[in-house]
Amino acid sequence: MYEGAVQDLIDELGRLPGVGPKSAQRIAFHLLAADPADVRRLVVALTEVKDKVRFCSICGNVTEEEQCKICRDPRRDEGVICVVEEPKDVVAIEKTREFRGRYHVLGGAISPIEGVGPEDLRIRELMQRLADSAVTELILATDPNLEGEATATYLARLVKPLELRVTRLASGLPVGGDLEYADEVTLGRAFEGRRLLDV
Amino acid sequence: MYEGAVQDLIDELGRLPGVGPKSAQRIAFHLLAADPADVRRLVVALTEVKDKVRFCSICGNVTEEEQCKICRDPRRDEGVICVVEEPKDVVAIEKTREFRGRYHVLGGAISPIEGVGPEDLRIRELMQRLADSAVTELILATDPNLEGEATATYLARLVKPLELRVTRLASGLPVGGDLEYADEVTLGRAFEGRRLLDV
Repeated sequence: MYEGAVQDLIDELGRLPGVGPKSAQRIAFHLLAADPADVRRLVVALTEVKDKVRFCSICGNVTEEEQCKICRDPRRDEGVICVVEEPKDVVAIEKTREFRGRYHVLGGAISPIEGVGPEDLRIRELMQRLADSAVTELILATDPNLEGEATATYLARLVKPLELRVTRLASGLPVGGDLEYADEVTLGRAFEGRRLLDV
Repeated sequence: MYEGAVQDLIDELGRLPGVGPKSAQRIAFHLLAADPADVRRLVVALTEVKDKVRFCSICGNVTEEEQCKICRDPRRDEGVICVVEEPKDVVAIEKTREFRGRYHVLGGAISPIEGVGPEDLRIRELMQRLADSAVTELILATDPNLEGEATATYLARLVKPLELRVTRLASGLPVGGDLEYADEVTLGRAFEGRRLLDV
């Protein structure tokens, strides 16, 4: 509907996840009216992310070096590996400040519907790490959904011969939530995983 | 939370209208995993929109020439000017195929809260056009909200001495909607603007 460059930009923005045609149009006109320096910064950020960012050779997290910040940090416990699906899960867990071990980013979860099998994930690299190092605990922190659960079960069976301590993040009621609004599965899990109160 | 380039991109994306921190993160990781050619196309589109696109010297619509497609089209009726707030309104009206006249894009609406006064809009250019050409009807198609109504009233008073036919788009029930879901103001307008049925 627009002439040349404006329509091209709307089309390209509309290809981004979560950006519909109306949002793409809104963003395009925002950029058209924006300071050229702002657009320049966005262009530089887009270019640099493709030029500079790669995946950590050890854990698969995003990094600009050969190894990521966490793998380079000697203070992090090498005995515990927390397996996650995506780099953003690493950030989410780091924010809790609860975990001082290392990570392993799979790059997704097993999903037959989307055609993602174990061979598409960084599982071979995980097995290599477990064989090479003195890991004592493997925390399976894949998402608490169908694909994440399937991936956790698959990994738990795969590492069984190694006789590690294999754990899964607790499922239960979200903190600050109302019991009556919890869905049945979550409430069921909360019962199943109930803890003894030491008072 | 992320290293360098990834965080820079998330920050820049987060500055776009309607893109929150979670969406920015999602888009950044999408681009990180995307084909470099796709990202390149987005970068080119962003750069070209700032280099090539300007505003039509007559109507203020977006264009890559001195004048926009509509102002260059000799088949469009020069006797009717439809005044809109933004270039996207031109596209919305063009889609209806109801209008064969010319446009005038104000570049916004009068809004004391946002500090936009009449002098910030392309009103002087509109008055110049009206003085120079044989316009017989001025359609005020600013948005049917507070700012748009104020702008339409302001313009109607301003052009009163020119003795043009000044019209405003009809307000009423949206086609395909349910009467019971219409808000009171819209329903009130629909009553006010009721038409005689010729059957």
